[in-house]
Amino acid sequence: MNVSFPSNRQELLDQQFQRLAKLVGRLENNAFWQPRLKSAEWTSDKILSTPPTAENLRALLDRLPIVRKAELVADQLQNPRYGTNLSFPLSDYARLHQTSGTTTGKPLRWLDTPESWAWIMSCWKQIYALMGLRATDRLIFPFSFGPFLGFWAGFEGAAQMGNLCLAAGGMSSEARLKLIDENQITILACTPTYALRLAEVARQQGIDLAKSSIRAILVAGEPGGNIPATRQLIETTWNARVFDHWGMTEVGPLAMETEHDPGSLSVLETECIVEILNPETHRAVAEGESGELVITNLGRVGSPLLRYATGDIVTPSWQSVEGDPPFVRLMGGIQGRTDDMWIIRGNNVFPSSLEEIIRSIPEVEEFQLRVHAHRQMQEVSIRIECRSGLSDAVCQNCAMRIRQQIKERHHFEATIELVEPGVLPRFEMKAKRIVTN
Amino acid sequence: MNVSFPSNRQELLDQQFQRLAKLVGRLENNAFWQPRLKSAEWTSDKILSTPPTAENLRALLDRLPIVRKAELVADQLQNPRYGTNLSFPLSDYARLHQTSGTTTGKPLRWLDTPESWAWIMSCWKQIYALMGLRATDRLIFPFSFGPFLGFWAGFEGAAQMGNLCLAAGGMSSEARLKLIDENQITILACTPTYALRLAEVARQQGIDLAKSSIRAILVAGEPGGNIPATRQLIETTWNARVFDHWGMTEVGPLAMETEHDPGSLSVLETECIVEILNPETHRAVAEGESGELVITNLGRVGSPLLRYATGDIVTPSWQSVEGDPPFVRLMGGIQGRTDDMWIIRGNNVFPSSLEEIIRSIPEVEEFQLRVHAHRQMQEVSIRIECRSGLSDAVCQNCAMRIRQQIKERHHFEATIELVEPGVLPRFEMKAKRIVTN
Repeated sequence: MNVSFPSNRQELLDQQFQRLAKLVGRLENNAFWQPRLKSAEWTSDKILSTPPTAENLRALLDRLPIVRKAELVADQLQNPRYGTNLSFPLSDYARLHQTSGTTTGKPLRWLDTPESWAWIMSCWKQIYALMGLRATDRLIFPFSFGPFLGFWAGFEGAAQMGNLCLAAGGMSSEARLKLIDENQITILACTPTYALRLAEVARQQGIDLAKSSIRAILVAGEPGGNIPATRQLIETTWNARVFDHWGMTEVGPLAMETEHDPGSLSVLETECIVEILNPETHRAVAEGESGELVITNLGRVGSPLLRYATGDIVTPSWQSVEGDPPFVRLMGGIQGRTDDMWIIRGNNVFPSSLEEIIRSIPEVEEFQLRVHAHRQMQEVSIRIECRSGLSDAVCQNCAMRIRQQIKERHHFEATIELVEPGVLPRFEMKAKRIVTN
Repeated sequence: MNVSFPSNRQELLDQQFQRLAKLVGRLENNAFWQPRLKSAEWTSDKILSTPPTAENLRALLDRLPIVRKAELVADQLQNPRYGTNLSFPLSDYARLHQTSGTTTGKPLRWLDTPESWAWIMSCWKQIYALMGLRATDRLIFPFSFGPFLGFWAGFEGAAQMGNLCLAAGGMSSEARLKLIDENQITILACTPTYALRLAEVARQQGIDLAKSSIRAILVAGEPGGNIPATRQLIETTWNARVFDHWGMTEVGPLAMETEHDPGSLSVLETECIVEILNPETHRAVAEGESGELVITNLGRVGSPLLRYATGDIVTPSWQSVEGDPPFVRLMGGIQGRTDDMWIIRGNNVFPSSLEEIIRSIPEVEEFQLRVHAHRQMQEVSIRIECRSGLSDAVCQNCAMRIRQQIKERHHFEATIELVEPGVLPRFEMKAKRIVTN
């Protein structure tokens, strides 16, 4: 893998100042950023003449307001169809992606120029280097390449590196398992949910995945990759290492679990500036405190984002791991999203913390969370589907254990409903396990 | 569009000799081609020292045996998993595609090196030039990017040219129609069947596609693009020009209907050598006679095909059309496949000739052909689904007209069964309308 990383944080800072100055210089015609840059008094010259220290970067960033997704959505509504965050004429853009729109309802459209797309490819090359991709690895991407960005870019990145890549859209899970075996695929790229769904289908077909050719599973799109119980269930079933990945359609692919550091995400600070801010005070959090991940990407020049509040809650560490670049590490990956948080009987609860409990019971095949208001209070009920072939007593016992653990950790009583095998929906991309009514 | 084509056939011939010699020189380690090249006494030097005339090319080709798909499938079975048609070590290959396997049952796997893939991209650039793609065109590819090659390559080719491209896999037809409208897409790339399926969904939703932003529909994967009635139905419904395209996973994208020449396919003779042979005598057919299309591709060096009998029946013309390169034109496109032909009461009948009759009745929404043996004779029965909301009398009349036209043109009585709206399957990729039992 021909990728070299900076060896210390000062080298990173030097690069970030240089790249930021260069980016700002190219936003002359970007109507979204121009007024913001002006009021922050950001110019290329000014950034370049600032000594590259962490304090100066902090001061520089503090002058620019934070941007949230709602602002971008509103901008696209007011300035159809692609909003004003365009650095170049529309004819310069070659790719159109959009977000799945599950959280806010409204999908966000995102355009890339060939240069921006090449930047995304360069991010993926670094990501593959961090996970220790080998030249002999063969990758399968079992999903239907829609308008989302995620693994689409991962597919092209791996193909550009010369690894054998197989796109497996529009096929049944059975056919995909056959392709994995026939082509002795070593890396599976999918959502955590779909890794478990493939395992369910394999079990039904009498296939032992622990003996398959898959050595690693690259997951993204859901928090599951770093929910310990979900992660362990996938790793045990497949007898393969899980690698979690993080990116967003609007910021690009920017974080990866490294070969040497299971259970964390390293952010590609070669390609972005990271802030982790207390959601209320907007002050940077210290090592080990949790806060919201805020990203300034440095190479997606066609539609860049500066100080973009991702909504993702993370806990940083700047202590580096032997063999890895000096990037900030998000301990335990993405812990939840600010807009996902429920307040149940006075406790802050993320769906991911409930998933951690449910997935620790290996008899559970699928589940669904339902939040509903009852006498002005939020309540949670959970539908549980156990694996087929288990007795009623076993299933009742699973439900009881889940109820108990939620009570112990989160201090509320969840209603648990057991449903028959095959009743709950299955997913090939991001799961929709949360129902509100 | 920055593509230049040869201006006459001698220039083409010169290029073909040069390219063929270069290709042969690079097959030193290709175990599939080496024995064949030896027994044909093909060497780079010999090809280069042969004066580039049509007669010499004919003589050269005649020495090499024709290859058929069955041989390639057998080679892959005997030499798992990718057969012996590999010019380089396996680690040099970066993409894996496979055929849909509908005709012969067994899919064929096909590997490409980055160089071969770049060649496929260069074919698509020429294809887009031939159809008159404009810099302002926006393309949508509404299907689930599976292991087939076809529009996959078309997508990347257009993105590389800088046209705005939208991949719309894993979505409903309703969502795709919305994307077309929201992004003012000008070119739709899909099978003829799916162009009609989108039209059906639009009608159900009260959308008038004749007023949509689509100006052209690039179709492939089925003969429909050049079945006049199917073509006309698509063009009328969408108020857009149909452009037919031809390619195969194992040979690449090699023929296109040009802007100036509706209803034919021009073969990219810059990238391949074309023979059209009488299937029995293997002699080249003359202008206006039908024969089997045999292809030697010149740039897919990782796994090339020399004298590959495609099974497609075509009728050539070497008379050029004003404004187009001097390529051989396949009049009426692909007329059928050798392995599709039925003998019904002594008549040769292609499914495409029945489709021509059925699609000329605009009240028909879907259909299905069933061939079955009856007293040692082949018989055809046809299931017809009319559009919803039509009276019984109208539907009966459609059935009668179809039966009469088949009788007139093909001299046999087909059994026609009318079924309720929504009963027959719908397709997003290649339709499977032929049922055998």
